[in-house]
Amino acid sequence: MSDLNKSNIAESFRSLQLEIVDALSLADGSVHFASDDWERTMGGGGCTKTASGGRYIEKGGVAFSEVFGEVTPAMAKQLNIQANSFFATGVSIVIHSQNPSHPTIHMNVRYFETDQEECWFGGGIDLTPMYVDKNYAKAFHLELKKLCDSYRSEWYTSFKNWADDYFYLEHREETRGVGGIFFDHLKPKDGKEKHDFFSFCIALGRLFPSLYHNQISKPVKDASEHEKKWQALRRGRYVEYNLLFDRGTKFGIASNGRTESILLSMPPVANWEYMHKPEVGTEEWNTLQFLRKGIDWIS
Amino acid sequence: MSDLNKSNIAESFRSLQLEIVDALSLADGSVHFASDDWERTMGGGGCTKTASGGRYIEKGGVAFSEVFGEVTPAMAKQLNIQANSFFATGVSIVIHSQNPSHPTIHMNVRYFETDQEECWFGGGIDLTPMYVDKNYAKAFHLELKKLCDSYRSEWYTSFKNWADDYFYLEHREETRGVGGIFFDHLKPKDGKEKHDFFSFCIALGRLFPSLYHNQISKPVKDASEHEKKWQALRRGRYVEYNLLFDRGTKFGIASNGRTESILLSMPPVANWEYMHKPEVGTEEWNTLQFLRKGIDWIS
Repeated sequence: MSDLNKSNIAESFRSLQLEIVDALSLADGSVHFASDDWERTMGGGGCTKTASGGRYIEKGGVAFSEVFGEVTPAMAKQLNIQANSFFATGVSIVIHSQNPSHPTIHMNVRYFETDQEECWFGGGIDLTPMYVDKNYAKAFHLELKKLCDSYRSEWYTSFKNWADDYFYLEHREETRGVGGIFFDHLKPKDGKEKHDFFSFCIALGRLFPSLYHNQISKPVKDASEHEKKWQALRRGRYVEYNLLFDRGTKFGIASNGRTESILLSMPPVANWEYMHKPEVGTEEWNTLQFLRKGIDWIS
Repeated sequence: MSDLNKSNIAESFRSLQLEIVDALSLADGSVHFASDDWERTMGGGGCTKTASGGRYIEKGGVAFSEVFGEVTPAMAKQLNIQANSFFATGVSIVIHSQNPSHPTIHMNVRYFETDQEECWFGGGIDLTPMYVDKNYAKAFHLELKKLCDSYRSEWYTSFKNWADDYFYLEHREETRGVGGIFFDHLKPKDGKEKHDFFSFCIALGRLFPSLYHNQISKPVKDASEHEKKWQALRRGRYVEYNLLFDRGTKFGIASNGRTESILLSMPPVANWEYMHKPEVGTEEWNTLQFLRKGIDWIS
């Protein structure tokens, strides 16, 4: 791709969405995807593919958007930019698994440019098991390291630490899950870098279905009431993270984005219980011990 | 009370909490209140009284707090103040009712001062029925008008409109419920005004139990599955409001407040469903028509 511009980046992201939906449909033969095209009054639009009723996937979706227009005061504040107009395109995924032994997973790749001759890429992926299994966390991180290493040797460590800091619930003093990678404001200094950053985003997106497929390959029994309750409580934390901290959600709301597509990330059900604390030594307690920054999952 | 200062305001709020808990226990003979004292590392603390298992009250609580200390950068930004130290005290209530025909209700009164010779009162109350009943909304507003009128003739209209603007979900283009009153930064210009504003906050707090009691006096049948599902979806909106917009929640998080007490407002369970739209003409659809600003509930 010699001439990488916002149009062909958006078109590639649109194709990426379809590829991912196809691959997830193969991984979960029972899942149903519905398609929903939408337009943004202030410029642009998107297509939201919602997933439901799968054997593995309970609720989720793969969303593509390509929005542009005037930078509103709320957006300028939110993004800390001084520009008159913007263009943003991306693919976002959140999947909530049926079984509490299978994780919630999120991925996003995005491209942003303004009329001030600046552009950048961002994205990330992170895994939120209700019950942390070190082997599955390790497998996840190994794949991410392999991908990063094929682009820049320093990226895995840098983006992994960034994810630890980013997917963090300050008020709970816990990470959202076992992390992954996160990167933002990756500004290319030339055409070669622009192509590399773009190619990395596409490669991450293409890796997504197999990363999720690995996680749901974990054999599980039917969930007990106790496990379902724990899942709903952990989903409550997921809601807290998304509404209090997630930049995509905040940007979406600030830019008058499409609410239903932004909140596609919400779980089907979430519970809250005052001062819930699992007993020491239980599986639930063990999981909480893993929800901290700086864990080296690979070695 | 000739000498109204932060200490005796806090003590009055503490007594108010106990009074309200007693009155709610009378209104719902089955409800269980648990008491939880806590301290804030950076200064102050509070007492959270959590409610559960009532005939009418499913989950909720009445929280008292008295916190003080250094103004952190996050707080300065959140509150838009330039001060070195602050003192804040208040009583907050959220009650989620068991039956979908009984509402969620929220009340808060608070006092704030800084080392810059400034102080103010704030507060409010609002009603969130899952099914709007015009008569019950009217009764609620009439009581609030009566209270306001006994202080300042302009307050009801002013605070009612403020509540319409404040308890509003921008991204959903709907109000949280049928509103109520809201006021903030009520800065007394002299001792007389300070006493009036304080007395108004106490009176609002004392009115709370009877306001809730009126709402749950509505005779109801056991809820159907359909009604429970609608309740859980509406509770999802309540979660969105609290985590995306509520100032108390945002201030609490920014001031390193006590997470469990701040998030006492969360419902026991909440659902999300992509693009859920009730059929035209149903009870659920009727309720949505009432979720807009500027409705005059009284006349």
